[in-house]
Amino acid sequence: MRNIRLTIAYDGTAYHGFQRQPEFHGPTIQGMLEKVWKALVGEEIHMYTAGRTDTGVHAAGQVSNFLSEVRIPEGKIPKAFNSLLPRDIRILAAKDVEEDFNARRSAQWKRYDYRIDNHPIPDVFQRLYALHEPVLLDVPAMQVASRFLEGRQNFQALAAAGGSSKTFERTLYVCQVEPEGGLLRLTCMGNGFLYHMVRIIAGTLLEVGKGKIRAEAIPDILQSQQRKRAGETAPAHGLTLTYVHYGEELPWDIYPRFIDRVNHLET
Amino acid sequence: MRNIRLTIAYDGTAYHGFQRQPEFHGPTIQGMLEKVWKALVGEEIHMYTAGRTDTGVHAAGQVSNFLSEVRIPEGKIPKAFNSLLPRDIRILAAKDVEEDFNARRSAQWKRYDYRIDNHPIPDVFQRLYALHEPVLLDVPAMQVASRFLEGRQNFQALAAAGGSSKTFERTLYVCQVEPEGGLLRLTCMGNGFLYHMVRIIAGTLLEVGKGKIRAEAIPDILQSQQRKRAGETAPAHGLTLTYVHYGEELPWDIYPRFIDRVNHLET
Repeated sequence: MRNIRLTIAYDGTAYHGFQRQPEFHGPTIQGMLEKVWKALVGEEIHMYTAGRTDTGVHAAGQVSNFLSEVRIPEGKIPKAFNSLLPRDIRILAAKDVEEDFNARRSAQWKRYDYRIDNHPIPDVFQRLYALHEPVLLDVPAMQVASRFLEGRQNFQALAAAGGSSKTFERTLYVCQVEPEGGLLRLTCMGNGFLYHMVRIIAGTLLEVGKGKIRAEAIPDILQSQQRKRAGETAPAHGLTLTYVHYGEELPWDIYPRFIDRVNHLET
Repeated sequence: MRNIRLTIAYDGTAYHGFQRQPEFHGPTIQGMLEKVWKALVGEEIHMYTAGRTDTGVHAAGQVSNFLSEVRIPEGKIPKAFNSLLPRDIRILAAKDVEEDFNARRSAQWKRYDYRIDNHPIPDVFQRLYALHEPVLLDVPAMQVASRFLEGRQNFQALAAAGGSSKTFERTLYVCQVEPEGGLLRLTCMGNGFLYHMVRIIAGTLLEVGKGKIRAEAIPDILQSQQRKRAGETAPAHGLTLTYVHYGEELPWDIYPRFIDRVNHLET
């Protein structure tokens, strides 16, 4: 039995999230991938996935794995998948991995980006990939607030009810707001994320940007562990799962402050 | 009678081009704009437009004008339009202009960008806005070829049949291939464009990038005035009308070499 790891990008606009659901709910990324593999080689598979993104959420570097008995070489798998997948889903890489690799349980940390289009009139080319916020945001205040979210803390105040987690302690290595090509980008890198956590962080930082929550109130909000003290859940379409990290050598260059953070927080 | 100038952005994916057509052909940008104005103020209008883009072509700075008797202040016009337009069309600005202003005839020069995603696997987020070309392109050769297209010349070899132009002399101030955020961007700035000219330039430069046409053959191709000597018409979805210039002060900073070009070519 092989264990095959896939790296996947998708535009989530047309999908009812990653996780397979009864067909009448609408198409899902997992459903598409499993259906295409069946059509290609006749094998029924079940996928394990790092971040089971919600309806409308995108991915630039999602990771899944599945067990297979098919002998197709790993290098030919992306092309085979992509020949049948719709154009809004692409397999970027496929690799044979150890039998005990599980895309969800083996993940060490993940990176999510939340994009905000903060102009009076929305950019039509970003409308599906960034939240439009016409009110001019106080970006420095959002940046101060985001720093309070970094570190190992209890994130219950920033988690939606209905998640499967029993504990609320997580580590955010990086939580930062930066300009990116005319947009604002919130980047969250952490060892685990609670249900809707990044979207609630985005919604809370938006309130800070509008002056409705003070940046200095963030530690209080965290400590209260009360969801109602934080901002609303920001819409799904601004969110992208960018990267999932496993045990390989760390790509330090993807984020300058990251190495300091990991050393500081984990040792 | 007022003359109102609009600056318009649109994602052309869902439209059958700019120009109004019988409804059964499918929706057009002009049709949407005229219908929305009618719904807003009850007035039938006719639009004049700088670049009547084809099916699937996008615009970041299209310009139209129309005559109106309605007294709504110019500053409120974009918001009124945008409140009823679909999200893939946005009015960026509206301005009262002289009675003799005509968005098409008064245009001094236009800028088109053609985007190419030159990676083995296409970027899902660019699939509607850039042509995917998996073959690794010889970009320096394309850059050499593009320079031969600059200047005042006969562009008949790079024009599709069926255009309304009777002359084929045009001036390209800038024709340049550059990297842009992981993509390649072909920029054409010129005082007039023949039918499908930018898409045929893109298709011809792609052939140069694949080694099928030599960069040094471009002057010959132009001189031959034979369409069959040039490359194929590149697909519509890579093309964006970026900017239309009228008599105001020139925004020199939008393109570094531009001022030299204009001085060199027009004097």
